[in-house]
Order: sequence, then structure tokens, then C-alpha cells
Amino acid sequence: MAATIIDGKAFAAGVRGQVAAGVAALKAGHGIVPGLAVVLVGEDPASEVYVAHKHQATLEVGMRSFEHKLAADTPEADLFALIDRLNADPEVHGILCQFPVPDHLSERRTVARIDPAKDVDGLSVTNAGLLATGERALVSCTPLGCLMLLRDQLGSLSGKEAVVIGRSNLFGKPMAQLLLQENCTVTIAHSRTTNLPEVCARADILVAAVGRAEMVRGDWVKPGATVIDVGITRVPHPQTPGKTRLIGDVHFESAVAVAGAITPVPGGVGPMTIACLLANTLTACCRAHGLPEPEGLTV
Amino acid sequence: MAATIIDGKAFAAGVRGQVAAGVAALKAGHGIVPGLAVVLVGEDPASEVYVAHKHQATLEVGMRSFEHKLAADTPEADLFALIDRLNADPEVHGILCQFPVPDHLSERRTVARIDPAKDVDGLSVTNAGLLATGERALVSCTPLGCLMLLRDQLGSLSGKEAVVIGRSNLFGKPMAQLLLQENCTVTIAHSRTTNLPEVCARADILVAAVGRAEMVRGDWVKPGATVIDVGITRVPHPQTPGKTRLIGDVHFESAVAVAGAITPVPGGVGPMTIACLLANTLTACCRAHGLPEPEGLTV
Repeated sequence: MAATIIDGKAFAAGVRGQVAAGVAALKAGHGIVPGLAVVLVGEDPASEVYVAHKHQATLEVGMRSFEHKLAADTPEADLFALIDRLNADPEVHGILCQFPVPDHLSERRTVARIDPAKDVDGLSVTNAGLLATGERALVSCTPLGCLMLLRDQLGSLSGKEAVVIGRSNLFGKPMAQLLLQENCTVTIAHSRTTNLPEVCARADILVAAVGRAEMVRGDWVKPGATVIDVGITRVPHPQTPGKTRLIGDVHFESAVAVAGAITPVPGGVGPMTIACLLANTLTACCRAHGLPEPEGLTV
Repeated sequence: MAATIIDGKAFAAGVRGQVAAGVAALKAGHGIVPGLAVVLVGEDPASEVYVAHKHQATLEVGMRSFEHKLAADTPEADLFALIDRLNADPEVHGILCQFPVPDHLSERRTVARIDPAKDVDGLSVTNAGLLATGERALVSCTPLGCLMLLRDQLGSLSGKEAVVIGRSNLFGKPMAQLLLQENCTVTIAHSRTTNLPEVCARADILVAAVGRAEMVRGDWVKPGATVIDVGITRVPHPQTPGKTRLIGDVHFESAVAVAGAITPVPGGVGPMTIACLLANTLTACCRAHGLPEPEGLTV
């Protein structure tokens, strides 16, 4: 039996709808409008596209969107002065700096400058520590999105064997923490793992975030497993010269025949990231005002 | 072939000797004496014994030891005023508050009050976040001690399958982070793990910290594995009425016949904890003065 194809696009639309409802309720009940500030340094074309998408999505759920575009040679002191102003601005509940930043700036120092309560990308040391110790954190958007898809697909995750391939601070490590909080038995595998196919084949939940196109083959997948593909590699389109297409870390054709459920690429995890950015901004706004957090949109 | 019995007592004595040499070098070269402050609230007899051991061990390696004993009904404000003074005191490089504290105090709030740079127990959210993101942290003493024993026993840990049973903030989670940094494939198992014997049997490195006496049996151990037993349960002595003895989370008699190496209880992991507390205090002192960190005593 072929796997259920998890429709991340539809699910993300649902999340954005929930966020929009939460925003409307905040406005109606308290006169509060959540605001997201996005900082872009330099003119990377891909980053400009991402920032434009975020801006549009933020407006669509009824939030305020503040865009700050700085020249590529902006000194760190000027960037930090802007972040300090955004930290202090009561109309701004979430701040993200679009990465990569130009070489003279440090991503680590930039993230550290953002108030952890407004760090809606969940990248700061403080939010990593809160997540690691089981306290209330802002959680990195893509792992949060994967968790939402898994909860929707499986209900309780308790006792399931989860394998996360990849151990980045942005995805693999927080994903493992989230699955552990859900009472999964969690394995973190990575480039030094010696028997990766065998490790993957144990997984009831297999999350691939290695950044190597189609590395995970169908015969690595336990029959009936739920497979979450976080990889995005752009390759030339096989039929149309000059065009490209996106492929994941999982070899979809072979995996779909074995898995119980699987996210496609594109249209799986991808759309969840911006939806969770909006969810985190709403969450940060509610916390800033001491109001109850939106249900189903946080950990 | 029976397993190598890892002599944690001898190894810990070696670590204390390295710390003493580092302290002597700091004194001779820079006129600096590392200092450890221990705060005890109330009169728990077991805590008083621990604090006395720490005091003695601190003096033995040539450090200053500052003991602060507060009455059981000390208000939080008074405890925090003391911690603030210790945070500001340049002669104090490490601070620990002996837990448990009386019920009217919060361990979480107490740890959060300690300057992360002096948090030699490695319990703060900041140190958990630094460890989780691969930055320079102060690492919880018992997992640091286990890592030292494993490095000594195995050399490189890269590519090995490690299983940690237990997911406490104090031990299991930081232990998993340390093993991941060493490039192990790491699984965290716990009370909700459904097939624990099978999960354990995969492990080249098996670390048990469940707090259930002799739960891990020999037939759960992969032949040749290195077994680290973090459990300590006090039970009545089988031969001598009125006496007690300590037993671990691993059923030693059956595991020793299968493992490649194993820590006994007592005399395995236990002695490493205070040794690593001293190592962390030396490390914190070196960092506070911008001096190179002692080799082999940090992550």
C-alpha cells in the first residue's frame, strides 16, 4: 500500500488561518496587533525573495510587518543599534535577521543581540537552553513545523523510535529535543554515523535533514514509518533545459512504496517554516502581554 | 573474557592531581588562587556530608574554599543577596548551591541567579544552551566525568553507537550532548522507551542513569561494549544487618561477563563528580582571567 502523502501546503494554510484567528482575537479583545520585524543586510537575491514572502505572509494574517533593509557594508554597531531599538519597541514582538549576513558580520553575535523573548527564529543560546531544559522557549520554526505535522499524522508520539539525521543547531538538535519532549526514543545520526541505513531502518519516525539529495533510499525505511523530508536541493529539471526543480534528502519514489506517510518535496515541510514564524510571533506577542498562548501553535 | 573494571577512584585521583598542578601553576605564574563557594541552606545531614567532602577536596588541590551555611528558613531575598555578592567577588570563581533546598526556595530560580561564568555545576539555562549549540560552556560535573572515563578507555568515540538511559537536565541530556560532540550516534532512552533491552543491545557505549537498581541486565549489553553506571541506590547489606551498601543501575555480575569495560558501583563514576567540580572551578578561573584552559579537564 502506498504511503499517505502529507500535504504540508494545506496544513500550513490551516496554521496560518489559526494564527489569523488569534491575531483577530487579540485585536478585538485587547487592541493589540502583533508585529514582526525582519532585518536584511545586503542584497542577496534569494534573501530578498524570502523576506518579501515573509512580509506578505505577515500582512495576510493581520500582523504588522516592519522591514529594515541595510546596506551590505553596514557596520556591526549600526546593525546592533537597530536591533536594540527593535528590542525596545513595544510594537515589535518578533525580530529576525535574514541570514546569511555579509562576511564582516557574525551570525552568532547578531542572534545574541536579539532579546530572547523576541527571537522568533529560536536561534539564541537562551532559547536553545530553555528548550534543552524543558522550559518555555521560542522554538526554531522548521522543527516546530515538523512536530506539528507529526502530531497531526500520528497523534501521540510517546514510545515511538525517532531517528533524526543531521545535528545542526538550526534543525537537527532542536528537532531531537522536541521529539524527546514528546516521549520518543530519539537517535541523532549524522555524517559520522557508520551504519546509517541500519539506524534509519529502526525508525517509526524518520526525519532527514542532511542536505544530500535523495540520500535516504526506500530500503532504509521501516515499513509503515512516517518520513519527514527536510532537505531542499535545487537541481536541473530533467525534461526542461534551463529550468530547475527541488528534491529532498529522501528518494521519494522508493520511500513512498514503503513508508506509512511521507512529506513530499516541494509541498511538505517547506510551507511550514513561514507558518511557524507567524505562530511564534503570535506566541511571543501573547507572552509579552501576559495573555494565554494560542492553542496548538506552540510546543 | 571478563570486562576491564574501570577504576574511577584512581582516575579521579589523577584528575585531582592535574587540577592541583594547574592551581600551583596559576599561583606561581600569575599569583591567582582559584576559589569555590558552596552555599548550603538548611541542615540536611546528607548535604552536610557532601559539602564537607567538597570543602576538603577543594583545599587539597590548593584552592580557596568558601562555605556559606544559611538557616533553613532563609528568605529567597537573603539567599539571592549572598549569591549576588559571590557573583561580584573576584576571589570566587565557582559557586554552587547544594540541592535540595528547602521547599520555600526554587532550585530553578537559585541556579538562574548564579553568574553562568561561575556556574560550576553547569546547571543554568545559559550553560545548557551553550552546550546544546556547541559553544564553550561549563558542563555538569557527572557527565563531564563520564566523558573523561570514556575518552581514557576508548580514545576516539567517533562513529560509535552510544545509548544514554535517562533524560534528566542534570545528567542524561548533557551526557547525550557531549557524546554527540564526540561524533557518536546517540540514542536517548527513558521510561517511555518500549523496547529498552533491544535499544541497549545496540550500544557500543551504554550509559545508565535511571535510578532503578540493577535494572540493566547482562543480556541487554552488547558483547564488548563499554558500560558506564551512573546509578546509586542504597540498599540493606545482604550479610550484615543494620549496614547498607550502594548498588548501580546495572546488574554488575551479569554485565561484567559480557561488557568490554564497565564502571563498578561504588568506585566508578562517583569519585569523578567532585574531581570534575574542581576541574570546572579551575576552568572558570582561567576563563575569568583570560588564561588558557587546562588541557584534558574541559570538553
